[in-house]
Amino acid sequence: MAKTTLALGRVYRLLEPGPVVLVTTANRTRANVMALSWHLMMEFVPPRVGCVLSARNYSFSLLMESRECVINIPTRGLARQVVACGNASGRRRDKFASSGLTPEPSKYVMPPSIRECFANLECRVADTRMVGRYNLFVLEVVHARIDRALARPRTIHHMGSGTFMVAGDLIHLRSRKK
Amino acid sequence: MAKTTLALGRVYRLLEPGPVVLVTTANRTRANVMALSWHLMMEFVPPRVGCVLSARNYSFSLLMESRECVINIPTRGLARQVVACGNASGRRRDKFASSGLTPEPSKYVMPPSIRECFANLECRVADTRMVGRYNLFVLEVVHARIDRALARPRTIHHMGSGTFMVAGDLIHLRSRKK
Repeated sequence: MAKTTLALGRVYRLLEPGPVVLVTTANRTRANVMALSWHLMMEFVPPRVGCVLSARNYSFSLLMESRECVINIPTRGLARQVVACGNASGRRRDKFASSGLTPEPSKYVMPPSIRECFANLECRVADTRMVGRYNLFVLEVVHARIDRALARPRTIHHMGSGTFMVAGDLIHLRSRKK
Repeated sequence: MAKTTLALGRVYRLLEPGPVVLVTTANRTRANVMALSWHLMMEFVPPRVGCVLSARNYSFSLLMESRECVINIPTRGLARQVVACGNASGRRRDKFASSGLTPEPSKYVMPPSIRECFANLECRVADTRMVGRYNLFVLEVVHARIDRALARPRTIHHMGSGTFMVAGDLIHLRSRKK
């Protein structure tokens, strides 16, 4: 998969439709990956993303510790791996090894990017003030890469209990909005 | 469209996949409707939803004033109305009249629900502490209604500039997760 840099001003187009994402985190000795659907765009440029992680997750601890993560966006072919990441804990298991996902170095942050995902958004934690009350992290995307060969990525959108909606057709309407 | 009450514990299944929604707001004299994609689930029960609204929007003022709104979820057939709501301001125009959307009374909140949407989530503002910095409202869903006749609602997911992804096929995987 040949990825190229995506302008930060276009990041919202990837997350606004609401795909499940794989978030990678790391400290100096361990890396982890979790499935996440509870995210929203908060600003276009610099792209800010809010996400809620359960405090029980190992990824929560790693994110608090390193203040960095990568948001990796999978497509339909990775659905099995997404569910596997959601059902195991990185405390007890190397989820890269068990899922077959391939870590590759990120450009600006320590956590690895996932090779098999068509987009990788490298993030730094910008604000933890809502973590105590809501487990809500505010992230800033500092670098984005995308596989442009994929004209219509079949992202998957979680509907609960292992049911996913697969991205369908596109429709285009005239709009003055971003 | 015959709607029935949806258990609050199932609300996340509607929003987690990331559809564009129509948010209705009102004060004693005016009602308004806006299109919104910047939302996330924050808690299962009681269902808490975070959403970011531009402070320039009339809906922002109405939401600050009344502390109530309804999140209405449209399907593909309403795409034209969604874009129309996104491109006009309720300060100058009655968007219910101009869009052809039909307001109907909500059960617990003052803003109307939209008849043509397959789901209506009545919300109260639970926390405005992140509004000043991020325009982020924390809402609590207090009542939810859904049209159960629609087995697979073709929700629409905004990808920027009037392009929408229409919800496609469903896939089911065994999962221990909600």
